[in-house]
Amino acid sequence: MSDDEALISFKPKNKEIKVPTGTNLIDVAEKLGIIIPNICGKTGKCGKCKVRVLNQELGHNLQEEILLSPEERKMGIHLACQIDINSDLTIEILDEEHATISNFLTYDLAGDLKVDDHIKKINVELLNPTIENQIDDLSNLENSLSLFDEKINLPLPILQNISSFLRKHDFNATLVVEDNQLLSIEPGDSTSRLFGVAIDLGTTTVVGSLVDMLTGKVLAVSACTNPQTRWGADVISRVNFATKEPGGLGKLQSAVIDAINEIVEALCHKSDVNFREISELSFAGNTIMTHLFLGVTPQFIAEAPYVPVFKKCQKYTAEELGITIHQNSPVVTLPNISGYVGGDITGFILASEIHHSEKIILGIDIGTNGEIVLGSKERLLCCSTAAGPAFEGGHINSGMRASVGAIDKFSIGEDQAYFHVVGETAPKGICGTGLVDVVAELRRVGIIDETGKIVSPESGLSPDWLKKCIEKNQKQSAYILFSEIEPDKHKELKITQQDIREIQLAKGAVGAGISILCKELGISVNEIEKILIAGAFGSYMNKYNAQKIGLIPDISIDKVTYVGNAASLGAKKFLLSKKTRIEARQVVKNTEYIELSSRQDFQDIFAEKMLFV
Amino acid sequence: MSDDEALISFKPKNKEIKVPTGTNLIDVAEKLGIIIPNICGKTGKCGKCKVRVLNQELGHNLQEEILLSPEERKMGIHLACQIDINSDLTIEILDEEHATISNFLTYDLAGDLKVDDHIKKINVELLNPTIENQIDDLSNLENSLSLFDEKINLPLPILQNISSFLRKHDFNATLVVEDNQLLSIEPGDSTSRLFGVAIDLGTTTVVGSLVDMLTGKVLAVSACTNPQTRWGADVISRVNFATKEPGGLGKLQSAVIDAINEIVEALCHKSDVNFREISELSFAGNTIMTHLFLGVTPQFIAEAPYVPVFKKCQKYTAEELGITIHQNSPVVTLPNISGYVGGDITGFILASEIHHSEKIILGIDIGTNGEIVLGSKERLLCCSTAAGPAFEGGHINSGMRASVGAIDKFSIGEDQAYFHVVGETAPKGICGTGLVDVVAELRRVGIIDETGKIVSPESGLSPDWLKKCIEKNQKQSAYILFSEIEPDKHKELKITQQDIREIQLAKGAVGAGISILCKELGISVNEIEKILIAGAFGSYMNKYNAQKIGLIPDISIDKVTYVGNAASLGAKKFLLSKKTRIEARQVVKNTEYIELSSRQDFQDIFAEKMLFV
Repeated sequence: MSDDEALISFKPKNKEIKVPTGTNLIDVAEKLGIIIPNICGKTGKCGKCKVRVLNQELGHNLQEEILLSPEERKMGIHLACQIDINSDLTIEILDEEHATISNFLTYDLAGDLKVDDHIKKINVELLNPTIENQIDDLSNLENSLSLFDEKINLPLPILQNISSFLRKHDFNATLVVEDNQLLSIEPGDSTSRLFGVAIDLGTTTVVGSLVDMLTGKVLAVSACTNPQTRWGADVISRVNFATKEPGGLGKLQSAVIDAINEIVEALCHKSDVNFREISELSFAGNTIMTHLFLGVTPQFIAEAPYVPVFKKCQKYTAEELGITIHQNSPVVTLPNISGYVGGDITGFILASEIHHSEKIILGIDIGTNGEIVLGSKERLLCCSTAAGPAFEGGHINSGMRASVGAIDKFSIGEDQAYFHVVGETAPKGICGTGLVDVVAELRRVGIIDETGKIVSPESGLSPDWLKKCIEKNQKQSAYILFSEIEPDKHKELKITQQDIREIQLAKGAVGAGISILCKELGISVNEIEKILIAGAFGSYMNKYNAQKIGLIPDISIDKVTYVGNAASLGAKKFLLSKKTRIEARQVVKNTEYIELSSRQDFQDIFAEKMLFV
Repeated sequence: MSDDEALISFKPKNKEIKVPTGTNLIDVAEKLGIIIPNICGKTGKCGKCKVRVLNQELGHNLQEEILLSPEERKMGIHLACQIDINSDLTIEILDEEHATISNFLTYDLAGDLKVDDHIKKINVELLNPTIENQIDDLSNLENSLSLFDEKINLPLPILQNISSFLRKHDFNATLVVEDNQLLSIEPGDSTSRLFGVAIDLGTTTVVGSLVDMLTGKVLAVSACTNPQTRWGADVISRVNFATKEPGGLGKLQSAVIDAINEIVEALCHKSDVNFREISELSFAGNTIMTHLFLGVTPQFIAEAPYVPVFKKCQKYTAEELGITIHQNSPVVTLPNISGYVGGDITGFILASEIHHSEKIILGIDIGTNGEIVLGSKERLLCCSTAAGPAFEGGHINSGMRASVGAIDKFSIGEDQAYFHVVGETAPKGICGTGLVDVVAELRRVGIIDETGKIVSPESGLSPDWLKKCIEKNQKQSAYILFSEIEPDKHKELKITQQDIREIQLAKGAVGAGISILCKELGISVNEIEKILIAGAFGSYMNKYNAQKIGLIPDISIDKVTYVGNAASLGAKKFLLSKKTRIEARQVVKNTEYIELSSRQDFQDIFAEKMLFV
């Protein structure tokens, strides 16, 4: 084949074609009669033309980074319109399922995870006792572990059954031990199988990873919606339910335990691991989630002076908590930094190693609360800002969560506006990431001014088609996002002036938090050397637009990195390494929590940060 | 009052009299019309004339030591016929209840018990958290304990309730802690109340002591029959029940737990202590009892090569075992030395400090098994001999346990034989201590020869009344202990030739054990410098007669000491002091167990020791 030709194969239809280099992939497909949807004239704005590149890892360009989720990018998904051929490619045309955005953020930056075998599996061949050597079973075990002067602690049920067990299996067994604690005993040699589960319990989503504790390899991931959402979408309504409803705390705890058990079951099913082989479970969640998980009232986190019951790592057995892994397996929670900066943020720090960084890093995880971490290995500060529910679609006229039917991407083109809908269906509402795009684009084209006000359609320089989208009336102004006249009803989705105010409150709170941390650290915002964006909302958010609306500082965009589900990665690191646990203790001890509500300067900075400048 | 007069007061009748010194107390009582029963002519042989001396501690003479139980002696009870007045005395005439021998051996040598507060009660006044100091409850606790870098472990239920508890009690609480483990938390300052229970679980009897863990003072003692006797009087029949009967092990465990709970309830009732204030429980029992207590099968102790599941101290919570003291309180078992030398013997050694002794001490605890310890601080040996059930009244024609109706003392006088019956009722049978007396006395007067054979009545020099007690017939010879012709039936208690053989087997086994230990230690029997007799049978046994029949070595009688319930005292020491626990570990490690069944020389020595020489 000549240098200026390339072979393009399409799966699963097994069609092939040789084309000159430089040809656009959509055009190549068209030649073979394969229709890849595209409605923005190959400008990379509509995000409809997703395909997967199977034979090599291509870099993603700007538009792809905006329109593709982190999982999609990791899977090798690209926008076909953004690919101009310059080598042989094998392309998978995605079926509907693959084309649908995942509901849960399970993606993280996990590379090779370090394992330091604090939980050990040891195969022992015990002595067969004789009349000359009447060794008791326990000493027999201890000697085989070379614990001659020490003592191994056995859970009572193991002590009760060990004599028959050993004799049944000819005194050959594998012990699962942590320090001097025996966790379980298995027949024969099972040293090649040691598993753990890391749970990230978000307010909205539960993600579980099954990890091989010998290699650090992630074997399976499973996720579901946090069933506590039944009793309130945000943490404060759950605290109220836990505190005021009789039995409320128990219901919230059971719901989460049940969800974790379902995830464990799914993980085992996916990977052919028995639940009894899971020797430890780590748990990362915000402080309130961690309290609810352990059945501890979060009441005093919600009332001034906002104190949690515990911050440090807690360790109980699976049996005590009702988790269906091996009954004696330890369950450990990542330590909390404060009432509103929890173990998930500790996990974020551990995952992204901000505490080891030479550079000054800003880490942000935005949801109903925006947790912000700023600093380096020298000094680390954090705070929590009440971003409010806007980024979760709450308090917004057409707002909704980022589930099927939500507009999650938006951009204004030359002659029309484009949006992407989760699940590729008709739009039902707009979620947080879509709102960031809408506000940024409206501001860009001058439909909203720097105070956030929707200007009169007449005042601007907008093209006519866009002017028609602006609704200006007595009650309140709005931007019409989507309008459809169906036989019986007029369906319309709009962004109201009030919606924009909500976004301003939210971005003002986050912006103020960042400013105050910079002030405390004694740096200006542009001295930040790196921004890490974690969490579901952040990972799907368009970082360019986030900068434009002032949600994140306006530093060079290549210094802004998505880190995906950093809490989940932190939970995995915490699970696998005792060293990480010691680090976590240090992180919690050394990270200074700044309580914004007690700051005199907060209101002023907050008001300033609400503007679009 | 002149020097040769003394004032004698009798309670509860409040009668007084002045008498010349030298007068016998029975005669004094008679003068006041108080009848003290006495049928042996004031020779101290019948033991009927028990009284209590209230105003001073008089020493006990030989006859008193023989005929009074250790508890009675400790209470100041004497034989009135053995007291010749030489100072003022206040005498209590005993009612029937007091005159009745206690069913349970609760007496021990407890002096001042050392306390080293391994379990601490600490009153803390915690900080009231503020917005400037948002200290979490757990750190608040840790700081108050000066555990700044360490971590206190909370049982999950305490963690779940601590925030409300602290706020309800104005952040003033008393913590019960062991190392870094919080056991319980009480409102306000309760540091003056800290209690523990020591349990001695014998095969036949359960004795519990409530101890003030701050002072070492014993506050109450309670005892009951081991309810496991329902399923077998000796340990081996219980092992069989546990092993072969479905659910048998569980039944045996529950029975003992229930009995302990009843004892705890009685102890609390006697001393006005709440069960939740009991912060620890220690348990001494033989190896099989300790296994059954923890629900661990003792199967392999009963089968060659006779190995227990564990020897070391075991520690579980009251909740795990179902014991109704504070749910988080530790329950600790005294470590076992071997399958047949258990935690009760470890307790015996700790109580009597054989392991610290300069002198060579022989310690014996005889029941169905005779456990024997020999040595000094230089070297300690032990063994267990299958004494068989004879000393417990088993396999004996008229044998019974030492309960109401049992002949427990016996002696042959000039013109009649005397015996004492437990409960002062008509005799129903004879128990172990009575058998020792009978065999010793029959041997003394020549009715049995050195091979143990009952000789022909004609051959000896016995008085006529005694010859009539000997029954010599085709079937087998016997000594008639008691005979009564009632209207409808002829009631007779006799000691048969076969009974004497059983006693010979039992004393032969114990004697052989002692001989072999001496041989192993490289000493002759008369180099033993002290003999300590522990346990119920031993404590009620006449040590003179025990020497005469060769059950214990024939060294100077003042070197033979009763130590009462040494296992119970050991359990108390173990409860109160961590140092004792470390010593216990050393004792178990350093005490050499000699397995008699594997000795070539055992049978020969055993045969020799069966003789009366």
